[in-house]
Amino acid sequence: MLDLFFRPDPQRDAPVYQQLAEHLIELIDAGRLRPGERLPASRELAAALGLSRNTVSRALDTLVSAGLLGAHVGRGTFVQPRVRKLRDAAEGRPALDPSPARSFAWPTLISARIRALRLPADPVRGLAADTLRFDFRPGRIDATALPISDLQGAWQRALGRLPEHGNEVEPFGHPPLRVAVARALGARGIACSPEQVLVTGGAQQAFDLIARALIEPGDAVAVEQPGWFGAALAFRAAGADLIGVGVDDDGLHVEDLMRLARVRRVKLVYATPAVQMPTGVALSEARREALLALADREQIPIIEDDFDAELRLAAPARPALKTLDHGDHVLYVGTFSKVLFPGLRIGYLVAARSLLARLVALRFASSMQPPLVEQMAVVELLASGRLERHVRRMRRRLAERLQALRETLAAEFPEAAVREPAGGSCAWVELPPDCDATGLAADAAAHGIAYAPGDSFRFDGEGPPALLLSFAALAPDAIREGLAELAALARGRLRRAPRRRSG
Amino acid sequence: MLDLFFRPDPQRDAPVYQQLAEHLIELIDAGRLRPGERLPASRELAAALGLSRNTVSRALDTLVSAGLLGAHVGRGTFVQPRVRKLRDAAEGRPALDPSPARSFAWPTLISARIRALRLPADPVRGLAADTLRFDFRPGRIDATALPISDLQGAWQRALGRLPEHGNEVEPFGHPPLRVAVARALGARGIACSPEQVLVTGGAQQAFDLIARALIEPGDAVAVEQPGWFGAALAFRAAGADLIGVGVDDDGLHVEDLMRLARVRRVKLVYATPAVQMPTGVALSEARREALLALADREQIPIIEDDFDAELRLAAPARPALKTLDHGDHVLYVGTFSKVLFPGLRIGYLVAARSLLARLVALRFASSMQPPLVEQMAVVELLASGRLERHVRRMRRRLAERLQALRETLAAEFPEAAVREPAGGSCAWVELPPDCDATGLAADAAAHGIAYAPGDSFRFDGEGPPALLLSFAALAPDAIREGLAELAALARGRLRRAPRRRSG
Repeated sequence: MLDLFFRPDPQRDAPVYQQLAEHLIELIDAGRLRPGERLPASRELAAALGLSRNTVSRALDTLVSAGLLGAHVGRGTFVQPRVRKLRDAAEGRPALDPSPARSFAWPTLISARIRALRLPADPVRGLAADTLRFDFRPGRIDATALPISDLQGAWQRALGRLPEHGNEVEPFGHPPLRVAVARALGARGIACSPEQVLVTGGAQQAFDLIARALIEPGDAVAVEQPGWFGAALAFRAAGADLIGVGVDDDGLHVEDLMRLARVRRVKLVYATPAVQMPTGVALSEARREALLALADREQIPIIEDDFDAELRLAAPARPALKTLDHGDHVLYVGTFSKVLFPGLRIGYLVAARSLLARLVALRFASSMQPPLVEQMAVVELLASGRLERHVRRMRRRLAERLQALRETLAAEFPEAAVREPAGGSCAWVELPPDCDATGLAADAAAHGIAYAPGDSFRFDGEGPPALLLSFAALAPDAIREGLAELAALARGRLRRAPRRRSG
Repeated sequence: MLDLFFRPDPQRDAPVYQQLAEHLIELIDAGRLRPGERLPASRELAAALGLSRNTVSRALDTLVSAGLLGAHVGRGTFVQPRVRKLRDAAEGRPALDPSPARSFAWPTLISARIRALRLPADPVRGLAADTLRFDFRPGRIDATALPISDLQGAWQRALGRLPEHGNEVEPFGHPPLRVAVARALGARGIACSPEQVLVTGGAQQAFDLIARALIEPGDAVAVEQPGWFGAALAFRAAGADLIGVGVDDDGLHVEDLMRLARVRRVKLVYATPAVQMPTGVALSEARREALLALADREQIPIIEDDFDAELRLAAPARPALKTLDHGDHVLYVGTFSKVLFPGLRIGYLVAARSLLARLVALRFASSMQPPLVEQMAVVELLASGRLERHVRRMRRRLAERLQALRETLAAEFPEAAVREPAGGSCAWVELPPDCDATGLAADAAAHGIAYAPGDSFRFDGEGPPALLLSFAALAPDAIREGLAELAALARGRLRRAPRRRSG
């Protein structure tokens, strides 16, 4: 048994679990707990220290979420390497701050990820807008294909109605938009009344409001791994411990989630059942049923992030998880930003009315109401059929572009495995295991080629090399040219995998 | 000495102060601590219970913020009447939930206040939009006077630039708007670079981001009393204990704030120095200096909510507090919603860069970025001078309307004292002490006259009867007619003040 001598200080206001977490950090700092070392099970620790198991678990979870310990279901808890470098650390950027639980490590992580993924001028990767030649980063759109005059017409009409609507303050959202969303969802099999619809500032605000309403610091939130870090950031901001659950060809590994739920109270599950972000796989029928049964048994709310639902308007793959949800466990989240442009901050959330009262109070306290004119303009675009027309065009374009991506990779870099996305505008490309993903990222940046490295979507360190490529923003010819160049760079970064010594 | 026997339970994760707070609630529930009873000083309590004074203070503060105890600087801590009725309780609405600290009492409060102040259909007061005859509620605008074609032109041009800007994701805000705001503030004597400007979803999001970045549950935030409950809600959402500091003819009573800061660590101060919301008074020069000296000495950040700064563009009364801020303690917050319409969710925040990094991480986690097209349109309106033209017209109109309000009240209800507002679009009207404000509110609702009762702006119960009347939305004739009617109702609600018995 490790020497973990610890006595809580009753003079301190800090709860015992926090004092224990701080004590463990001191042991790690002093080198008495060493990288790779396995900790005793929480039950043993609790007995040895004379504390409740709950207290010990919270302390360990705190350190897991701070990145100081690594937890793997069924394998135990390990001390992580002391400084986990972000993938850009090799390029001279500061490494992720490994400071303890209560610190704001996550803003560092966010800003590194903002830099890596989204900002046009990107100091980390040296990709200023003018040196950027091929942009495969997710979330990009083909802005030249926006139906500008349709948009101008819709906004014109919306602004023209301000003399009657200019005093509207509706924390739930513009009532006609709530009606239009409820109707559109009804057509997709999701029965909801306008009163259950909360208009949000994009899907991100929906995650934030849900997290603030349901999560207390230290609560466990299960997220897909690899998964969408944007949603995860909202949960972290509320103090959640993120627990990654794996993804395979059938989507979220619900069996692992069930195992997790047996050992720990899961307060919330975040999932992308239609088109898993980032791998693009769809959640299988069997898993959907198992997930809802789990939610029902354990009373766990599930966020269904149906981020590209509007892109599948005319060709729904599988019905939404929400259509199978008879126990009102699914919080359904959608957005109009994906079919229009990322700066349009109009999303929506469907929830039971009891929860909605709490969500709208938080919305009022945090931002009063969504932007009125944008909401009115979206109503115009929906009512006139112009949004649907734009979506039909986008779907045709996206299909051509995905085809160009697939063909180019098959011809130029057959070693890579391209997953067939169930929808959306991104393809998950798994590189051969002996490809140096970090080196490739540096080469690509030097050549003005931008994409999202697979590691951006992992929460507990690096996984097999992968890329997420968006095919939304570039015309087919540019996709062919850019990918051929990227494939040549990737071939140059193939290396022999180091042989493992036996014994 | 009261019998307060209490021993913390070491098996519980809850911190000791929380356990003590719960114990006190039980004593109140059981009637062993009775309404009006004065509690021993925290020093005495700490000694009697064998706890640290800090623990006792936190427990008491928790109960103060939950409304179970009332604290008055220099006078001690008292048990409040058990169920504090909201002003609408008399009308059959549920009373404010008096449940303890960790509960969500504040959403109840929010929804009651949303109902009372803002929503067009108002079930509490029976004011559906179609029975509303005179609308004096704060935050309303004269929507018929909006420069619709100017707005249409600005949005038209903004949308026309989407082919180049459609992929913009700027969590700090649209860069040209940051430049324009920095320039406009520079003209008002606030030296700041565009890098210090964070565009927010209205002023409310600025309060929310600041609260989330700086406040931990139980931290003390000093707010003006009476004061703006919108800002206060953001602080409460972050778990703050709100401490009301009084307001007199010179604005926030900084001397009381200094006394408060001597007995308790104040983490944040919220103030409206230019035009105190709701009383309309300006913070005096001497108090401004004292406030900044206090901030410097105690390292307390101050939010300066300059909500109607744009309305004073052409005639700045006093320079902003921020112009005197050499220690970077002032977080300056402004908004464009007041000069345009409440549904325009574009505000801004000026802060030191170190804090801004944290704020923008929270913004990204909670809503990614502000709405792009609205930001571009505001840039157009600023650059073309159309916004300034609109503001000049508004100021003329507001001056006429304030004049009509003043004259009518002087003629029809000279018993009321109208404070001369230093700016903005609202007047604080103090009713004679023997006027039944609750009865008046009911009468006014029955007659289709809406305004904000003074109690909406108080955090610790009822004060002398007052009304906040906006003169923005109604033409001078409507103001005269509506106020004459309201004055007649108020005269009907004058009653003889109950004589105090001596001894």
